[in-house]
Amino acid sequence: MDLVSFRETAKRYSVIFLDAYGVLKSSSGLIEGALEVVRSLIDDGKEVFVVTNDSSRSPESMAERYNAHAGCELLPPERYISSGMLASEYLENQVPYGKVAYLGKPESAHYVEIAGKIPVPIAECSARDNIVGIVLLDDEGFDWFRDVNATLNLIRQVNCPVIVANADITYPMKGNDIAIAVGSLGGLLSQITEKTFVRFGKPDSMIFAYALARAREQLPKVTKRDVLFVGDTLRTDIIGSNTYGFDSTLVLSGNTLPERADLMIRASGIIPTYISQSIAT
Amino acid sequence: MDLVSFRETAKRYSVIFLDAYGVLKSSSGLIEGALEVVRSLIDDGKEVFVVTNDSSRSPESMAERYNAHAGCELLPPERYISSGMLASEYLENQVPYGKVAYLGKPESAHYVEIAGKIPVPIAECSARDNIVGIVLLDDEGFDWFRDVNATLNLIRQVNCPVIVANADITYPMKGNDIAIAVGSLGGLLSQITEKTFVRFGKPDSMIFAYALARAREQLPKVTKRDVLFVGDTLRTDIIGSNTYGFDSTLVLSGNTLPERADLMIRASGIIPTYISQSIAT
Amino acid sequence: MDLVSFRETAKRYSVIFLDAYGVLKSSSGLIEGALEVVRSLIDDGKEVFVVTNDSSRSPESMAERYNAHAGCELLPPERYISSGMLASEYLENQVPYGKVAYLGKPESAHYVEIAGKIPVPIAECSARDNIVGIVLLDDEGFDWFRDVNATLNLIRQVNCPVIVANADITYPMKGNDIAIAVGSLGGLLSQITEKTFVRFGKPDSMIFAYALARAREQLPKVTKRDVLFVGDTLRTDIIGSNTYGFDSTLVLSGNTLPERADLMIRASGIIPTYISQSIAT
Amino acid sequence: MDLVSFRETAKRYSVIFLDAYGVLKSSSGLIEGALEVVRSLIDDGKEVFVVTNDSSRSPESMAERYNAHAGCELLPPERYISSGMLASEYLENQVPYGKVAYLGKPESAHYVEIAGKIPVPIAECSARDNIVGIVLLDDEGFDWFRDVNATLNLIRQVNCPVIVANADITYPMKGNDIAIAVGSLGGLLSQITEKTFVRFGKPDSMIFAYALARAREQLPKVTKRDVLFVGDTLRTDIIGSNTYGFDSTLVLSGNTLPERADLMIRASGIIPTYISQSIAT
Repeated sequence: MDLVSFRETAKRYSVIFLDAYGVLKSSSGLIEGALEVVRSLIDDGKEVFVVTNDSSRSPESMAERYNAHAGCELLPPERYISSGMLASEYLENQVPYGKVAYLGKPESAHYVEIAGKIPVPIAECSARDNIVGIVLLDDEGFDWFRDVNATLNLIRQVNCPVIVANADITYPMKGNDIAIAVGSLGGLLSQITEKTFVRFGKPDSMIFAYALARAREQLPKVTKRDVLFVGDTLRTDIIGSNTYGFDSTLVLSGNTLPERADLMIRASGIIPTYISQSIAT
Repeated sequence: MDLVSFRETAKRYSVIFLDAYGVLKSSSGLIEGALEVVRSLIDDGKEVFVVTNDSSRSPESMAERYNAHAGCELLPPERYISSGMLASEYLENQVPYGKVAYLGKPESAHYVEIAGKIPVPIAECSARDNIVGIVLLDDEGFDWFRDVNATLNLIRQVNCPVIVANADITYPMKGNDIAIAVGSLGGLLSQITEKTFVRFGKPDSMIFAYALARAREQLPKVTKRDVLFVGDTLRTDIIGSNTYGFDSTLVLSGNTLPERADLMIRASGIIPTYISQSIAT
Repeated sequence: MDLVSFRETAKRYSVIFLDAYGVLKSSSGLIEGALEVVRSLIDDGKEVFVVTNDSSRSPESMAERYNAHAGCELLPPERYISSGMLASEYLENQVPYGKVAYLGKPESAHYVEIAGKIPVPIAECSARDNIVGIVLLDDEGFDWFRDVNATLNLIRQVNCPVIVANADITYPMKGNDIAIAVGSLGGLLSQITEKTFVRFGKPDSMIFAYALARAREQLPKVTKRDVLFVGDTLRTDIIGSNTYGFDSTLVLSGNTLPERADLMIRASGIIPTYISQSIAT
Repeated sequence: MDLVSFRETAKRYSVIFLDAYGVLKSSSGLIEGALEVVRSLIDDGKEVFVVTNDSSRSPESMAERYNAHAGCELLPPERYISSGMLASEYLENQVPYGKVAYLGKPESAHYVEIAGKIPVPIAECSARDNIVGIVLLDDEGFDWFRDVNATLNLIRQVNCPVIVANADITYPMKGNDIAIAVGSLGGLLSQITEKTFVRFGKPDSMIFAYALARAREQLPKVTKRDVLFVGDTLRTDIIGSNTYGFDSTLVLSGNTLPERADLMIRASGIIPTYISQSIAT
């Protein structure tokens, strides 16, 4: 396993997609030197986007938080592409007007609202409510025992699509701890009900296609070969971007610990184009 | 469950994507009236493409076969979009020059050749061969006992990507019989080796994005909302196109039997935009 | 699907094993007529045992509850055989003396205590605590968000067996509602951590062997062919008892609704020896 | 990870259950010194049984093969306990008289014959044949492409139990190669058909209970605590025997390579009571 300099690697690409968590930010704040690298990429004329499995808050809120960490503007909201945006587009186009039951914090209901639908917390829904969709947005903002069970029964009783707006299984916490992400709750409910849910986020190709389309608004001639995707997770960032046709850099500043990277690559069979310690190398 | 006329539904869309098997063709030949409908769609100025999970033969060979069934030209080769084409693109861009071990008929090796790599049947490979990729193309053309076991051991010994060029689990045969598709063999090998494979084909979004890009070459202003996807299988065609943002018609001329359609929709939670008996209605 | 009289069927067997929930009791109390049938079986000289996937309370507590429902003694505690008893036996024999972290109500800790180990609620454990085992006993008695996540991290950090003391996926609630059982939480955690847990309860054969051994204490010459197992769930009671070698009666007074029984048998391929409306027929 | 002497460990137990493959025998013949150890265990008055996931041949044939390897009698046929025997018992008691379709070599049909049923190779069956059971016995003796597909369609058309007489996923071959076992074929068919099959063999408890009952015919007072189970595979031998209540020795002469044992124990969470290089230590 050879580590290469991310800065050197990035020179060969005109579009850089960065995962957020584990690349820019960790549970203890901004990753050291990440901000400076993002700035220098922009200064070098690269098109930089953050592409993240997240449906807990809006791009505006994401931008604000990163800016607060950075102490200045890192990237404007339109440079943040989240799996929640895809879920929102689905709700807008594939679901009729009406009430959408959601699991998550009130803030995450943003993705239902911008789709022009009426968000209702699961706890306030019943099967008599004429629900047009059920969407899993965040693992926080509700009572798990009461509301995961309520979601289960709503799914069994109502014949409407169930949307998982973030396919992640876990996310990193302080130290080496992890937390169960809303994608795992979706998996649990899908197994019990034996229904197929509509899932958004890496590794599915759709978010990569969406991001590329955004980049093309800036650089119309860009092709997949001009894009470098940078992520910290083999099973989402790396397999997904490679499948879609982007070269990829695995960084060891997040989910994939430096001492386990080689083993995890061999065990999973997922091979990144490059490996770097972090983007600040 | 209300059946609607496919011809009436199609009028509202400028781009029509048709699954092949179960929509145009069954095990006993062309579905009655399908050819005439395809012709009338074209005459009405629709952009028509066939979008199929298939990596057993080239688009040229597909076109020829449909033409032979039809007794005249149905669609030219460039209107056929297969999961094999995505696998080929992957092999071209993500895999270095070298030998690619493949499972399938010699004809399926087309997808390795056009990627500029050297196809070698699994039976002729060994771990010493400096293999750059392993690709599962077809369920025929090899001895299952010998070669599925050989593939298993090659995957365990060689650290290279494993590509499943058709994600289908089964395909329909004469009567109500089905056959195990190469996607199932991929699933079996992935479970045993605990490795993540690169899988192409519906329901993953990539083939839908690819098809839309092709349609845009003809009609540059086309959006997802202008597309109708027609398929016979809930778990691939319908969930995939709905997730990507296409309206969908489930036809009952293939995998989904008319008497079971309502139950299957309720059980799976996958809801097509429309349901039609066949495209000839 | 032919319904037969349970009372007539029971005449051919000397040992009757009854599942509890769905056979004797529903969410709205004792199933009508069940008590009288149990009494008449005993009067006829049958050896009657309740065999249940349950680790939320002791056999004594189960007996008390059924007696309270019945208004008199139904069966003494030693006639209740629970998956919790197997978990307890495991803890006693396979785990050294020390602290066992548990998920469940304080009452469920009974199964840790009788194994001679020290029960500690998950919320009060840390990886520094020298934990000798982790046991999932009940879906109630803790904060799901906090404690399922705490269990996840404890499993990742401590190299000790994880025991799922009740393999059930769901259990029935009022109306047609269901609730997520602790077996599902075990499945979720096992998938995330990729570890193999020690699971107790139907359909695994062990509880059937344990029950048969108990019956032999009363009737030493009893063989598997003398036993009738009565349950309401195909995937636990029926497949498990048939695999072990007991004849089985599926009753339609619990998980398997009368209108869906035929479909569920065909879809699952799990074929009970007999089907009865309830034990009171 | 501390290696202990198997001979020393064995002294504390009166009953020794030995897995066959990886403990007594490898692909290159009898494991060095294994025969002498078995003899000395017998000389020391231990009750020794071979307990194996195997339904490809009868106990008589197993005994003969081991004797041929050993050049003298190792153990008589009644000391071999196979998962095939459990499948046979199931066929005898749970399936009416009639034709049983089987997958395997003609020799494996032994287990259908002793159950008093009529074995018919899958290739010679049709859905009109009034099949009373379908049993997967061996991965050899048939054309995989033709007959695995034929089994799939038979399972879909006939409403009878499907029995997997050996739950193993793979088995070791020459060098580090492995081969797909019939348990994997069962898993594949069960997933495609969404049916629940009746599976026999470790890690399910039933074979352990069966073996213990046999040992009790020799030593009536034997309890689980008197038994040591010796196997080479964590996911079958060790988790199964520990769950059932036997102490266990993991030997490193088969599936679990010495250099990977510690990692595999930590990754799986399956903890053997003892670890020995082989039984000849």
